[in-house]
Amino acid sequence: MSAAKNVLFIMADQLRADYLSCYGQRRLATPNIDRIASMGVRYTRAYTSSPVCGPARMSLYTGRNAFSHGATWNFIPLDIGTWTLGDYLRPHGVRVALAGKTHMRADAQGMARMGLDPKSSLGVLASECGFEPFERDDGEHPNQNFNPDLAYNRWLRSKGYESPNPWNDFANSGMAKDGTVLSGWALRNAGHAARVAEEHSETPYMTDRAIDFMRETGDTPWVLHLSYIKPHWPYIAPRPYAGMFGREDVMPAVRHARERAGHPVYAAFQNMQIGQTFSRDETRETVIPTYMGLVKQIDDHLGRVLAYLESSGRMKDTLIIFTSDHGDYLGDHWMGEKELFHEPSARVPLIVHDPDPRANATRGTTDDRLAEGIDILPSILDYMGVPVPTHRVEGRSLLPGIRSEPGSQSWREAAFSEIDYALYKARQTLGVAPEKARAYMLRTDRWKYVWYKGFRQQLFDLQNDPQELEDLGESAAHAGILSEHQGLLLERFTDRRNRVTMSDADVEARTDGARKVGVIIGEW
Amino acid sequence: MSAAKNVLFIMADQLRADYLSCYGQRRLATPNIDRIASMGVRYTRAYTSSPVCGPARMSLYTGRNAFSHGATWNFIPLDIGTWTLGDYLRPHGVRVALAGKTHMRADAQGMARMGLDPKSSLGVLASECGFEPFERDDGEHPNQNFNPDLAYNRWLRSKGYESPNPWNDFANSGMAKDGTVLSGWALRNAGHAARVAEEHSETPYMTDRAIDFMRETGDTPWVLHLSYIKPHWPYIAPRPYAGMFGREDVMPAVRHARERAGHPVYAAFQNMQIGQTFSRDETRETVIPTYMGLVKQIDDHLGRVLAYLESSGRMKDTLIIFTSDHGDYLGDHWMGEKELFHEPSARVPLIVHDPDPRANATRGTTDDRLAEGIDILPSILDYMGVPVPTHRVEGRSLLPGIRSEPGSQSWREAAFSEIDYALYKARQTLGVAPEKARAYMLRTDRWKYVWYKGFRQQLFDLQNDPQELEDLGESAAHAGILSEHQGLLLERFTDRRNRVTMSDADVEARTDGARKVGVIIGEW
Repeated sequence: MSAAKNVLFIMADQLRADYLSCYGQRRLATPNIDRIASMGVRYTRAYTSSPVCGPARMSLYTGRNAFSHGATWNFIPLDIGTWTLGDYLRPHGVRVALAGKTHMRADAQGMARMGLDPKSSLGVLASECGFEPFERDDGEHPNQNFNPDLAYNRWLRSKGYESPNPWNDFANSGMAKDGTVLSGWALRNAGHAARVAEEHSETPYMTDRAIDFMRETGDTPWVLHLSYIKPHWPYIAPRPYAGMFGREDVMPAVRHARERAGHPVYAAFQNMQIGQTFSRDETRETVIPTYMGLVKQIDDHLGRVLAYLESSGRMKDTLIIFTSDHGDYLGDHWMGEKELFHEPSARVPLIVHDPDPRANATRGTTDDRLAEGIDILPSILDYMGVPVPTHRVEGRSLLPGIRSEPGSQSWREAAFSEIDYALYKARQTLGVAPEKARAYMLRTDRWKYVWYKGFRQQLFDLQNDPQELEDLGESAAHAGILSEHQGLLLERFTDRRNRVTMSDADVEARTDGARKVGVIIGEW
Repeated sequence: MSAAKNVLFIMADQLRADYLSCYGQRRLATPNIDRIASMGVRYTRAYTSSPVCGPARMSLYTGRNAFSHGATWNFIPLDIGTWTLGDYLRPHGVRVALAGKTHMRADAQGMARMGLDPKSSLGVLASECGFEPFERDDGEHPNQNFNPDLAYNRWLRSKGYESPNPWNDFANSGMAKDGTVLSGWALRNAGHAARVAEEHSETPYMTDRAIDFMRETGDTPWVLHLSYIKPHWPYIAPRPYAGMFGREDVMPAVRHARERAGHPVYAAFQNMQIGQTFSRDETRETVIPTYMGLVKQIDDHLGRVLAYLESSGRMKDTLIIFTSDHGDYLGDHWMGEKELFHEPSARVPLIVHDPDPRANATRGTTDDRLAEGIDILPSILDYMGVPVPTHRVEGRSLLPGIRSEPGSQSWREAAFSEIDYALYKARQTLGVAPEKARAYMLRTDRWKYVWYKGFRQQLFDLQNDPQELEDLGESAAHAGILSEHQGLLLERFTDRRNRVTMSDADVEARTDGARKVGVIIGEW
């Protein structure tokens, strides 16, 4: 690296774009996140590569669609052969580290096949999808089968929260007036305050760890993935964020009775427990205020991060990316959680602050290009001055756009997202085989199109129906639009980068090269 | 393994199906290959997974399309993470070995990333796409940059052929009457006899090595890939095969003047040197008799292999597969070599002899199901009693059909093939970027459809135009057929097996399983 350059890649988990004030939330002010937007570019039409944690994250860390990287759902191991951000940057002397969640599951079988010891330094990196695990923390696991010795649990005990699993029993539990401990796993308890002091809850803890990392690393170039596990469920917040918002702050659900008898896959998801629970007003009125509190808490602690960057002088050489892995239906469209492609689920916040003076002209602006999760990795490489390996990376750097470089206005015409719903009850309800449970979304300027394997297509007119309440997938009048999007989907699939073992430059150099190695083809 | 079971997987390189007498060749009798057909099933509509050596072979050895395995052309390394035949069988005590050509190039970068020594036993297997290299031989390399110490060269020297590269100077050269040595690399020399005795030429040498392997391995279960490098160019044969056929045996070229101004990609290929050279009658009349001689030679030596199987008692427990990696245009359609999707190039011979008594009813029959190269690996696993890993393998076992099992008549409705033409001069002529040089073929019962990235589609009516001389890709009357095939292509792409790190059975067992690990989602 020539000059000191760093990247702070901040992610909130399950954060809907429209729950930030810079994205239009009127009842919840997020001044610190808004400040990043005011210093950078805010993307208004950014989509997750897959509306579920695991595959979305693996797309962020590899720059490849789930269709290509194959870790298509939570806890599907990322194939040992897949290159990640750390592989690209570490050889350049960059410290690439994690504070928080990745949802990575190691490819134990692949490592065994290669004779790679999971505890060796290579094995640890391969197990953590290329991140040095400065602090790995995938969230609360009630029966501790994930890791019985989490650093956060040890830390809570050091602060006096005595329990084998204080995360579960204090940070993720409330208390009734009669002293009964109430689990944060039950949505009905979302309105109770967590049994920890605010400074001992998850978000400040991980913020401290991020600041520790930046302080410790000093002038060595670094990329830190600060990956908050909130506002993802369990929905429970400490005081003062518990109780900060009330039912009067809850917007009406975006939904229509006609959606009930909609697309078969969509219907099967509505009929899962989560959809049924979130279709009740009581759930929304209990959960959403807490969700808002958790977002507010993240914003407050990001204020500390920004202050550290300022005071340490790092603000001027650190690229800041703020995004989420996917949204949260929160009862819209008769759904909870994520998984499908309506805007509350598939759309994500994306804000990029590039300290380079070439980005001055775009500070505080919005960009409506169709951005995707896979664009993050090439943007980071681009900022760090490392060429983007276009034979593997399927996303595109956002930096030329941010720096108004010539040609940067040419961009993709459709954003892509996808889901492998094999592991949901909905798949079994529908009688679909595990390998057939796939759906693919394209969002173009005006339309949102979803192609389901084995089922009919969906189509929404985002211009005339921005709330996506009318599915035009069977509309004869839209046959041309449907066919056009089918063609775009073929284009997208065939954009897949599969020739991962030879760079495009190598291919160019070797083209028509048989004669150079003495092989003479087709000469009389 | 319960009883002794073996597989002899024989491949000829660049062998057109219609140059075998069992496939209708009238001037060239191939009684030994025909005998395998009489003992087994002959597939009349089998297609290569890619009409070029490297990707076709990697599809055979992985059971995955090139679209998935990514070794999309010759010398593109097979990603170190990809599982091959040897990975699946070796743990079951099967010796999986190679005698001949694979066209594998090791993924040196991938091995380095995993800290895997290429010279370790795991490294060697990874370098040879999972085969024990009993005899690796990818054909003649004039400047010996591939391997300066080939076993066949050493052996030739031991037989008195003195030269640093006797393969080039004797086995691949002829001699003019005046004593001038004539290189087999020049097509004009194809009619000359090679400067080796027949028993010292490539095909008998490799046949001997295969018999050596079977003798040495005895009763240990084995899979041997006997992979002849002929009748692939250089087109030169030893006596008596040189001169065995003449210009009177050469069939007229299948071609039409209207093809000259055809599809842009097709036109660019026609205009490469190989197409121009093979469009001359002189080339066809010189090369094709030699090509026929080389096929005849393979057939004769396969007679020795069959005799060995009989005499050793192995015929009754050995599955025999005979196929080719792709065909050879030989001047048809104004083309030489392969690469595109006309029948002479994309169609391959495929014959399977299953010794199991359950296959008795189909012996000597033909099957017109749309078979593909990717079906070979699952057929081998099926025969060896090893479950097919359906989360990785994209082909289907042919054995249920051969054994007339219930349900086996249900089969795919389209055969798929593909090409990455990035490394051809045609790509540069067309001004196409390396990552965009892709085309995909679907052959259905009646139609052949080709989707080119960035160019118009092609369509042939194989019922009314079996010679594929009329391209209907721009026919308005066929818009419905074109659109239907576009839909089939979407189906095919989304059949890709990308979730390679978790089996379908594991997925089924884990479906809707959050609660089992203590995670409670969506409960009030």
